[in-house]
Parts: sequence; structure tokens; C-alpha cells
Amino acid sequence: MLEPPFSRPFSSRFLCLFGFGFFGSRSAGGRRRTVAMELSLLAQLHERLQGLVLTTSDHTSVVSINLFVTLLCGCIIIGHLLEENRWMNESITALVIGVFTGFFILLVTKGKSSHIFIFSEDLFFIYLLPPIIFNAGFQVKKKQFFHNFMTIILFGAVGTLISFFIISIGAIASFRKMEIISLEIRDFLAIAAIFSATDSVCTLQVLNQDETPLLYSLVFGEGVVNDATSVVLFNAIQNFDYAHIDANIILKLLANFGHLFFSSTLLGAFSGLLSAYIIKKLYIGRHSTDREVALMILMAYLSYMLAELLSLSGILTVFFCGIVMSHYTWHNVTESSRVTTKHVFATLSFISETFLFLYVGMDAMDIEKWKFVSDSPGKSIAISSILLGLVLVGRAAFIFPLSFLSNLTKKSPDERIQFKQQITIWWAGLMRGAVSIALAYNQVFGLMTKPLVRFLLPHNAKPTMSISSEPSTPSSLHAPLLYNLQGTDAEAEAEFVHRGPGLRMLLSKPSHTVHHYWRKFDNAFMRPVFGGRGFVPFFPASPPDEGLQGLP
Amino acid sequence: MLEPPFSRPFSSRFLCLFGFGFFGSRSAGGRRRTVAMELSLLAQLHERLQGLVLTTSDHTSVVSINLFVTLLCGCIIIGHLLEENRWMNESITALVIGVFTGFFILLVTKGKSSHIFIFSEDLFFIYLLPPIIFNAGFQVKKKQFFHNFMTIILFGAVGTLISFFIISIGAIASFRKMEIISLEIRDFLAIAAIFSATDSVCTLQVLNQDETPLLYSLVFGEGVVNDATSVVLFNAIQNFDYAHIDANIILKLLANFGHLFFSSTLLGAFSGLLSAYIIKKLYIGRHSTDREVALMILMAYLSYMLAELLSLSGILTVFFCGIVMSHYTWHNVTESSRVTTKHVFATLSFISETFLFLYVGMDAMDIEKWKFVSDSPGKSIAISSILLGLVLVGRAAFIFPLSFLSNLTKKSPDERIQFKQQITIWWAGLMRGAVSIALAYNQVFGLMTKPLVRFLLPHNAKPTMSISSEPSTPSSLHAPLLYNLQGTDAEAEAEFVHRGPGLRMLLSKPSHTVHHYWRKFDNAFMRPVFGGRGFVPFFPASPPDEGLQGLP
Repeated sequence: MLEPPFSRPFSSRFLCLFGFGFFGSRSAGGRRRTVAMELSLLAQLHERLQGLVLTTSDHTSVVSINLFVTLLCGCIIIGHLLEENRWMNESITALVIGVFTGFFILLVTKGKSSHIFIFSEDLFFIYLLPPIIFNAGFQVKKKQFFHNFMTIILFGAVGTLISFFIISIGAIASFRKMEIISLEIRDFLAIAAIFSATDSVCTLQVLNQDETPLLYSLVFGEGVVNDATSVVLFNAIQNFDYAHIDANIILKLLANFGHLFFSSTLLGAFSGLLSAYIIKKLYIGRHSTDREVALMILMAYLSYMLAELLSLSGILTVFFCGIVMSHYTWHNVTESSRVTTKHVFATLSFISETFLFLYVGMDAMDIEKWKFVSDSPGKSIAISSILLGLVLVGRAAFIFPLSFLSNLTKKSPDERIQFKQQITIWWAGLMRGAVSIALAYNQVFGLMTKPLVRFLLPHNAKPTMSISSEPSTPSSLHAPLLYNLQGTDAEAEAEFVHRGPGLRMLLSKPSHTVHHYWRKFDNAFMRPVFGGRGFVPFFPASPPDEGLQGLP
Repeated sequence: MLEPPFSRPFSSRFLCLFGFGFFGSRSAGGRRRTVAMELSLLAQLHERLQGLVLTTSDHTSVVSINLFVTLLCGCIIIGHLLEENRWMNESITALVIGVFTGFFILLVTKGKSSHIFIFSEDLFFIYLLPPIIFNAGFQVKKKQFFHNFMTIILFGAVGTLISFFIISIGAIASFRKMEIISLEIRDFLAIAAIFSATDSVCTLQVLNQDETPLLYSLVFGEGVVNDATSVVLFNAIQNFDYAHIDANIILKLLANFGHLFFSSTLLGAFSGLLSAYIIKKLYIGRHSTDREVALMILMAYLSYMLAELLSLSGILTVFFCGIVMSHYTWHNVTESSRVTTKHVFATLSFISETFLFLYVGMDAMDIEKWKFVSDSPGKSIAISSILLGLVLVGRAAFIFPLSFLSNLTKKSPDERIQFKQQITIWWAGLMRGAVSIALAYNQVFGLMTKPLVRFLLPHNAKPTMSISSEPSTPSSLHAPLLYNLQGTDAEAEAEFVHRGPGLRMLLSKPSHTVHHYWRKFDNAFMRPVFGGRGFVPFFPASPPDEGLQGLP
């Protein structure tokens, strides 16, 4: 159990532990035994001292970290230089650099491997994914998101289920015909579950929140929500009695989804509120800005890991934690912490995304993957085409009917999802598989989504805005930053002050009315307890923001 | 070589890769072989699908991350509540919480283990140490540090060597007498090398840069420099011909140290300057603040990893990279990036330190370590006492003579190291072994250093300053932040403008004159190329700082 923690040359000073361990451990019993133990310890000591100089085992990981960090720096610089180019962004740059690096490694290793280290799922799910999703929640336009909440849930839960059934039935029918007899029904269902879920990380890359807010919130929201659907589907596939498939299954699935969705959301909201309460109540910023920042980072991460521990959807949890933190906690910290957290979350997310795409590029050069394709090209193309077709059909099968349903509840034509927008949602949601060759291949969809948005929805595209990847980031600190996350709430509130809600209102604009009652509750109970804009504790050095405190 | 990257339930959507891998890989040759391959792939597919739901292997790591992050949050909150208590700080809180948690785990696992995961050297050297040392370099008072540069090198290089020889000779003599016959001369030298180096992470905890700037820069600087000494010593111990030990060895050691010291420093300075040049030249902040922050973080980290790759001293490299980045790069970025980097480096360092002490606390409860102590308490106490005595003697043997030498070069009595200060340096430098039970034990020295500083140097202690762990962090952003890192340079410059340097000056204040010529070179060549205060590129939104630009 007791492992020698350090055995590298530069760790010399810390070898103290092992000095102590050497003198004070693993010896039990009489004198003779102690001497024998001492000798075996000395043998270990020798090995460790040898290890101090040789250190061959760690060498590969040091080399690969160096290579990856250098490539990341390269991606950032090239991404900056290509900023004005509408076809390129950091992700595509990273993909291209990854492909070239993979090719280079392939040459150096003489065709053995194209990536220098094997991507572990832990690396992705424990380190790279949480910052990306948390930042998306932290920076999301909350009003837009909650305004379309029902449609998002409809797409993410019911839509994904529809897609799942179409893909599984289609795959079973066509692959059986193609004599891929060896697949069981369970495998087909797994494949369908994989391909029925869209990918939120990819969506972030191709849709711009400021340019096309409705599309962004619908497609990205669907991507977040269908993570819960995927967990439900995979658990269901394992436990189903395949002999007795009946209509109850769908009800059961929906119940499971409901449970998972609410638990995950609650956990995220609870973590966010807890952080807001602690920081406000204990007035953490009084002594140290860094402590506030550390607490926000750690509690956001904790919410994700807790969800994993409880077998909930970590993505949903950390997304809602981000939303709650930006609504409450962010307003309770000092101004330095506000600037720091805003940028540090965005930076961590940015580094994680770039890293991901870099790896995917390298992975695309994996020679093993292409062997089968060159051996039986016909079959590969057929399988790929069938899957692609099924995904297209499965997606069309829920986007258009569910958009129609969603439009029925909206009275104003402005709020309805136009047919052109439906086509864009259908197309943009085709992206799936963030971490695979499949993404390199699907980035093609991403590349084609931008021009499609421009072509179908020209009135939405603002050319000056679309150049910058983060137009909302202000260079100066004060007013723009404060307005940035919650700016639109003020307008909405002003609107209600003028008109006032009522039954007529509830019928014509249900989500607006829900929003109004939420605002009332938020101002009367939530903000006084958890802080938030207008209820920040007093910081002597932070400039007052009276312009925003005047709201009810 | 091709590993399935993901096999967890929540990873369903990303399994695409493996869907693709399944259809497109590892099959070669004819039809029959393809079917066989397909079957084996299906077996793997099944295993993976099982893994999707069971996922027992990851469970422990998820549990331990949850526990650690929760404890970290607890440490931060308790540290905040105990802020006004002079005996406590985050590190000691973390140690105490670690000890209790270790005890609790010991109870739960019924005496099997006190820590839930084995601390790997990679975790420490690849993730925890770089942010701590980089932040120390980034926030260090550069003038104080370079003013005492020769003394620091004297302590870190010559002093550590003196200590090393005394401890090795003392250990050989006393342990041979105690019949611990089985140790070779090589082992004694390794033990001496471990115990002759002081610990910079610990120093950060007990000495305050604002309260006792001279002591801080001397003891912390020694800790950074003797990392290079340790690398040299460990390499030397491996390669020495023990039959022919002569006086040449010391010269050889010093030459090796010189080489390592200069290469590591140069690499750090080069990385820092490169980041400054890229950010200034390409004007990265124009498009994105996050890109600047990401580039600074990545290039700082790269400098450390490159040093590791080249077998240099990563600690020295990243420390100097921090110094150069705070002098040049930090002034070239947008104001948001300045606030963000300042706090994010401090926060990362803070989290790493707290994590470290938490682990050390848990490790202290390791039952294996205490078995030997209870079996032969006499021997344990004897060995510990001898080592402690040798460390005390070895340290005294260089602090007092080298301080005397250093004082000879200083004409003004203000600049000399007083005898009381020498005693504090001697005592504060006793701390060693950041990541072991030895630290928990040596924190005792830390606990006793604060009162010692107060007792010996009462005129230096400012009670209002000592309450806060980071008095230099301003709550408001503009002026204090700009003054914070370089404020004292202006005063020094003003002094020279009045007096003017000369030969008389060079003789009386050599380091001040070196400083003057450096400033001239810095202003004439370095700053125009690499940026820095007064030479920042034009950012429309950042407020001008004319007050500081007026310097020559």
C-alpha cells in the first residue's frame, strides 16, 4: 500500500519522505527480522536511487506533455493570425495541426502509431469536459435559454428518443440485409443511442450565441439535455428484458429521464446556491480574492464529480451550476474575482477545447483505422452512408414535428421557429462524437453550418460580430462587464412594469409570465439570501453600481 | 495500440469513436478473416457495453476526487474563519484536517490505509509544484531578490554543499557506531543530499514577503537555488568513483552547478521573453483576452516541462520565467488579462499548496510508518535526533560564515545581515520535505518560526499586515495593481537620477550600480522589444498610466 512517492532526480529534496519511510516503516518483530527488513529496504533504496538518474519510465510522458503544450501554443497563435478568416477557427486549426503532427509521428515511429499517448476516458471526463460545459452555463444568455426551455426539453428528451427508435430499427433492418449477422439487438440499440445524441462541444464551435441566439440555445440546450437521455438509454439497454418489449417501456424511459433530469438539475442548482451563500455569508472576499476564486472553481468541479458519484448526468449538473453561479455567486465576489472568474472559466474551457481537437486530429491519422477501409472500401462506405442517412432521417423525424408542436404554444410569430431555422437546427445538430475520428469527419458538417446559417438566415448574421469569437468580452472592466451577463433581464423587467401580468398575459405569453413570477420570487426571497445583482455585500473598494440596483 | 477511449455510461455520445473503430478497424485480409475479426470485436463491444454500466474501476478515483475537493473547500472556509488567528493558516488547517481524515479512513478501512489514493510523483511534479514556484517568481519583489542575489547563490550553492558534507560525514560516523551496517557510502550521501536542501514551499508558508522582505528573499531564494544543487549532487553521487575521492570533486561539483544554474535560468528567461515578444508583436489581446491568459499559462508551464525534458532544474526555470513574465509579459496584456493572470496564478498556487498539506496530513496517519517506531522506539528516536542534530549543525556551519562573508561586501550597516536575522535564517531554513510525514513534523519548525521572527525582529513585524495572508492584493483594480509588482523600482530610479552613478558609487554600492546599468539596458533595448511597463502596445479601452510612463 505504501508507495514511494518520488524517485526522480529533481525530487531530491522531497525524498525526505522516503528517508523517513526508510527509517521508520515496515519493520516489525525482533532484532534479526529488523536487519532482514533493513536489507530488503536497502535493496529498494538502491533501486530508487538508480531510478533517480535513469527515469526512463517518465520520459515518454514528459515528452508528450511538452509536445502537446507546444502544439497548444501554436494553435492559439495561428488561431489568432487566422482570426479574420471566416472558414477557420481554433478548433479547425487544432484539427489540421493534429493531422500533420499525427502524420509526422507516423513517419518517426515508422507507421506504428500516430498519437504519442493514449487518450484515457478519465482525462476527458474528469479534466477536459467539466470546464467546457461549466463555462457554457456560466456564459449562456439565461433569458434566451429559459424562454425556450420547454422546446429544449422536448428536443433533448422526446426528440432523442424518436431518433433513437428510428436509428435502431433502420440499423437492424439494413445491417441484417448486409449480412453483418453477428450483431445482437443490444448492440444495435447501443449504436443507435450513440448516434441519436448530438454533441454540445461541437455546437459551441459552429454556432455563435450573439449571432443566432435562438439557434444556439436550442441546439446547445438539446446537446446538454440529451446527455441525461443517453444515461437513461444506456442503463435501459442493459436492464431490458428483450423478450417482452411493450409500450410501457417508453413510459418507463420517460419516468427515468424525468428523475435523472430533476436530480441532476437540483444538484447543480444546490451547489451553485451553496457557493453563493457561503461566499456572501462569510464575506470571503474580505480577506482574500484568491480564496473566492478557488472556492468557485472547486465547488463547480465538486458539483460535476458528485453527479458522477451519484450516477447522475454530470453535464446537466455542472451546466446548471454554471447558470446559478453566474446569477448569484458571481455578484457576491469582489470585482477582481468577477473579472478573474469570468476569464479563467473561459480560458480553461478554451484550452480544453483546443486540446480535444488537437487530439482528434492526431487520432484521424491512426493507421489501424484506415486498414479496414482500404481492405473493403465498399462495405465501409455502405455502413457509413447508412448510418449517416439514418441520423439525417432520425433527426428530421423529430425536429419538424416537435417544432410544429412548440410553435402551437406561441402566439407571436416572432417567437415561433421558422422553417429555415428548423432546417438549420436539423443540420447543426448532426454533429456528434466530439472525441474521435468521427468528429474530424463531422467537422465537415460544422464547416458547412456557418455558410448555411449565413445563407438561410442572412438577417441574423452580423458580419462584424461574427469575426470575433467572443464579441461580448469587454476590454474595459466596469459597466460592460456588469451588463454582460444579465443585461437583458433589465429590459424584460421594464416591459412587465409597464404592462403588468394577468390571466390574459399568462395565456398569450406563458413563459414570460413564468419569468415574471420567478423574478418576483427571486427578488423577494432568493437574492436577499443568496446575493446576486443588487444584493451584493458591501465591499469598500468596489465601485457601486446604482444604475442596476434600482430594480425592484 | 488502439484503445477504446470511453466506456462509461455518461460517455455514450462519445462512443461514436468506438462505433467507427468497430466498423473501420483491425480487419485485414479476406472475407473469412473479416468475420472472425468481427466476432472478436463484438466480444470486445460487449465487454465495453458491460463496462458502461458497471464502471467499478473508476469508482475509487471518483470517490477520492470528491473527498479531496470537499476537503479543499473545507480548508478554504476554515482558513478564512481562522484568518485572524496568528497561529493558524490554511496549511496548518489542511494538515489538521488531513490528520483527522486519515484517522477516519483508518477506522473505515479497519487499519488498512490512511489515504485513499497513492500520491504519485507525477501528480506532484507535473501538476502541483509548477504553479506554486511560478507564482512565487511572478509575485516576488524583484528588487529585493536581485539585490541579495549573490548572497542567495552563496547560500543555495556553497552553503548546501557545506551542509551536505557535514551531514554525510556525521551520518557515516554515527550510524556506523549504531551498527546500521548495511548502509553503503552511496546511501549516506543520498540521505545527506536530501537533508541538506531546504524547502521553498514551506518557506512560503511561514515567512511573509511584506513583513520580513530580507529574510523571505534569502530563505526562499536559497530554497529555489538549492534545487539546482540537489540535481547536481544526485547526478554526482551516481557517477562518482568512490575509490578516488579528491579535492577536484568540489571544483567539478561547482562547475556542474554553474552549468545547470545558468542553463535553467536562461531557459526560464527565454520562455518569459518569448511570451512577451509574441503577445506584444502579434497584439494577441486585440481579438481575445482569453487567448492571452491561455498563452501565458501554457508558456509558463512549457518552460517547466522543457527544463524537465532537458534534465535541468525545473524549479529554477519556472521561477525565472515567472520573474520575466511579471516584468515584461504582464505589461503587454490587456487590463482584464492583468487582473486575471495575477489572481489565477495565485489561486492555482494556493489550491496546490492546500492540496499538498492536506495529503501530508493524511500521510501522517499512515499506520505502516508508526509500526517501526512502536517496535523499536529507542532506535527511531536516536536516528531522528542524530539527523536533526546534523541538519542543525550543517546549517549553522554555513549560515554564519557565509553571512559574515556577505556582510564584508556591504558598506552600509542597513544592508548587512544582522546576527538576529542570521539566527532566523538558520532556523527558518530547517524546514525540509514538503510532501511527507517529515513535513507534518517539520511544520513544528514553521509554527515556531513566526513567534521567533516576532521575538527576534520586533521592529519588522507590522501587526496589521501580518493578519492578512496576501496584504498586497488590492480590492480595487487600477492604480494599486500597477504599482504592486514594480512600485519600488520607481523609487530606486529616482534615487539614481538624483545622485548619478560613478566609480565611488560602484565601490560603495556595487549591486545598486549593477542595477542602474541593468535599468539603462532594460529601457534602451529590452523594453522596446519585449514590452513592459511604459512600453505597452496601445489598447483603446485600457486606461493610460502616465504617472508611470514618465520614467526614463
